[in-house]
Amino acid sequence: MNTSSPNGILCFTNCLLLQEDGTFRKKDLWVDQVTGRILDPQDTFFVRTERPGEVIDLQGSILSPGLIDIQINGAYGFDFSSQDHDDEAYMEGLKMVSSKIVETGVTSLMPTVVTQDKALYPKALQRLHPLPSRTSASLLGWHAEGPFLEMSKRGAHSPSWLATAPEGLRTFEAMYGTSNLASDPEWRNARADTDAVGGRIITLAPEVEGVMGAVEELAGKGIVVSIGHSTAISAVAVEAAKRGATLITHLFNAMPQLHHRDPAIIGLLGAPAYLNRPPAIEASSASPSSASKGQFKRPFYSIIADGVHLHPYSVKMAYSTFPEGCILITDALHILDPHLKDGVHEWHHGKRLFKEGDKLYVDGTTTLAGTCVPLDKCVRNLASFTEISLGEALKCASFNPAKCLNIEGRKGTLRPGADADLVVLDNDGVPQSTWIKGKRVWTRSV
Amino acid sequence: MNTSSPNGILCFTNCLLLQEDGTFRKKDLWVDQVTGRILDPQDTFFVRTERPGEVIDLQGSILSPGLIDIQINGAYGFDFSSQDHDDEAYMEGLKMVSSKIVETGVTSLMPTVVTQDKALYPKALQRLHPLPSRTSASLLGWHAEGPFLEMSKRGAHSPSWLATAPEGLRTFEAMYGTSNLASDPEWRNARADTDAVGGRIITLAPEVEGVMGAVEELAGKGIVVSIGHSTAISAVAVEAAKRGATLITHLFNAMPQLHHRDPAIIGLLGAPAYLNRPPAIEASSASPSSASKGQFKRPFYSIIADGVHLHPYSVKMAYSTFPEGCILITDALHILDPHLKDGVHEWHHGKRLFKEGDKLYVDGTTTLAGTCVPLDKCVRNLASFTEISLGEALKCASFNPAKCLNIEGRKGTLRPGADADLVVLDNDGVPQSTWIKGKRVWTRSV
Repeated sequence: MNTSSPNGILCFTNCLLLQEDGTFRKKDLWVDQVTGRILDPQDTFFVRTERPGEVIDLQGSILSPGLIDIQINGAYGFDFSSQDHDDEAYMEGLKMVSSKIVETGVTSLMPTVVTQDKALYPKALQRLHPLPSRTSASLLGWHAEGPFLEMSKRGAHSPSWLATAPEGLRTFEAMYGTSNLASDPEWRNARADTDAVGGRIITLAPEVEGVMGAVEELAGKGIVVSIGHSTAISAVAVEAAKRGATLITHLFNAMPQLHHRDPAIIGLLGAPAYLNRPPAIEASSASPSSASKGQFKRPFYSIIADGVHLHPYSVKMAYSTFPEGCILITDALHILDPHLKDGVHEWHHGKRLFKEGDKLYVDGTTTLAGTCVPLDKCVRNLASFTEISLGEALKCASFNPAKCLNIEGRKGTLRPGADADLVVLDNDGVPQSTWIKGKRVWTRSV
Repeated sequence: MNTSSPNGILCFTNCLLLQEDGTFRKKDLWVDQVTGRILDPQDTFFVRTERPGEVIDLQGSILSPGLIDIQINGAYGFDFSSQDHDDEAYMEGLKMVSSKIVETGVTSLMPTVVTQDKALYPKALQRLHPLPSRTSASLLGWHAEGPFLEMSKRGAHSPSWLATAPEGLRTFEAMYGTSNLASDPEWRNARADTDAVGGRIITLAPEVEGVMGAVEELAGKGIVVSIGHSTAISAVAVEAAKRGATLITHLFNAMPQLHHRDPAIIGLLGAPAYLNRPPAIEASSASPSSASKGQFKRPFYSIIADGVHLHPYSVKMAYSTFPEGCILITDALHILDPHLKDGVHEWHHGKRLFKEGDKLYVDGTTTLAGTCVPLDKCVRNLASFTEISLGEALKCASFNPAKCLNIEGRKGTLRPGADADLVVLDNDGVPQSTWIKGKRVWTRSV
């Protein structure tokens, strides 16, 4: 299955390379299979006077950075939030998902832990340290969705486990475990693997008691603070962004509708590019001392472009307003599996799901439980809904999420020095092969 | 006050000409003061071998087509919906507004008649025939806002006068008067003045009984059908657009909020550029025989960018989604008058208004009755809210409304052959002088 060049230098030719602006360029891409990084061909050819040991003709296909899913609850039957496994079994589940998910073009993922029993958090997050791989998708860390969420916008989160943060950051540390909230270099260096790249996301509702007061400190630790499952009005949402929130979780879902006089969280997309005006602070938990200090950029926003969670016209309005901020996520349940047949499947707590196409119903009812649309299909959907190019849509599942995590030097890009995590797609955007650190790990069966 | 060139040919030089794409070009503009039209300088110079009798140096100012307001209820104390006047007094009121409004950069306006007593409509609309002028703003016809509106979204419209249309077009004809709904060439030629340019707009709620069935026929008569004061869901809004509705009245106001699963009327902005897919028709009043036949473009939408009716972030979302469809309107009450001082003013029925800046309150209360923001300020607001150029914002009050009315060959443009209705603005977008048919009719006092 693997391809190895005699001298470790591989050249993809006759292909359309995705650029960071979403356009394609017909150009070669050189990768070093030893380091697993993308090479600067000029430097390699002229300075090091090396030529590729192997040339792969992609016959006009698209060559894109591998896709990055920053919100995925599980796949192939394994639930990242499940605490029923011992460490070894859990790691095996993680690795199973990582090795299979590459068939959807995904080469990096951020396992997402939904609201848990308080006692389980420290261990649950500890297990999700960044974990690179030479043969499967990289694990990028963790996304903690909850428990500091608004009760009325909890969605499927367990109401009994939702929490407030009366002591601000201290409550967060008590909940998630202090070591899991260590400052970034310290947190990332806590494990031996220095090649690890990744980050942390916390989805929170800034209007919940004590939460706003922790935003700035969490952001200062290199944690991506994301607004979600929230009823925040415009002033509160702007204040959270000014304090360092740089992401909105599944835009439109689990938040107030866009009201024309108070566009709330969704309205942040229509804010000035830099939020440099003093907001009308109305969040009671905001301490005056840490009030807005300067300029903050509009936050990124994730959307579930499965054609079910959101009407295509809503997706187009969001994308058109702020293309550079758009991040595609699957928000997939553990049932995600492109090979899964329609029909009845086991769910959890003895319940069962009925799968019909992309939709999952509570078996025996017409209640929609979720969808099972892989990220590569979300890319194609976005292009279709918004009438943008496939390249612009691919950017929303590669460069944009990498930029949100501040790892765009290593992931989601084809610039020299970045990891050679790649996906080859046909001109309809369907993945043909996936490459990790310069080596082929999956090829579509003919 | 008027400027007249010896040979009737005038050349504006050293100015920034607004192009139809919203950009500026540093270029001369030639106008013929005899015909009142814009000249093709090449044709004039080389073929007719004429040179301008007068050259006006605009010292780097902006030269834009005059502004067009397609929804204005009155100004300078005169209410276009008032039926208290005889014909002569009403025409004097119209002419008074037309001659004063040029100080706001407006050179064409479409008087808007709000929901009336049924008995008054035929005469009220008959009075509003297109009326060109050499010294003041052109009257473009009429905008009938009502009475076929949704009760729950009626806003300030009188509930007792709202109507359904059980007999479709026949009910419309009985309401407005058959001659007022004549097909366009016939309607426009009903008066002797062949220089007249204009049109008709009907704001209606397509979900009201019998209304959807009349949309196609109204549009076929050259009347602009505008969706407004409506609770239409997405399927109904799309169906109305497919049947020929080409405008949305004051987007966001008096319509459902954008819901992510049913974005309704607002969602039309996020529709594909051409609505060519068969809609899921759910409008009971839609007759199957006249169902969607082909491709229809996304409708234009008017917005009140006064900073009060809409949050700036909402304006930005709408504009970003569909810039080419954006039309600025004042929706002004008769109290609109840039010279009006803050304080108490007479309103109607013995009530009084308290004016404070741009806001109008019911006197003695904190109830907002409306705003009084002239169109030139709406242009500056739009540029500020959306971070677009002044040129792109000016386009939304000139070329876009003209295009919506299908008069972009004559109004809202600087192309040769168009009426030389012009406004000179400083680089902040503040009008400095206004020109009608090539002659200066207003200059800012120093």
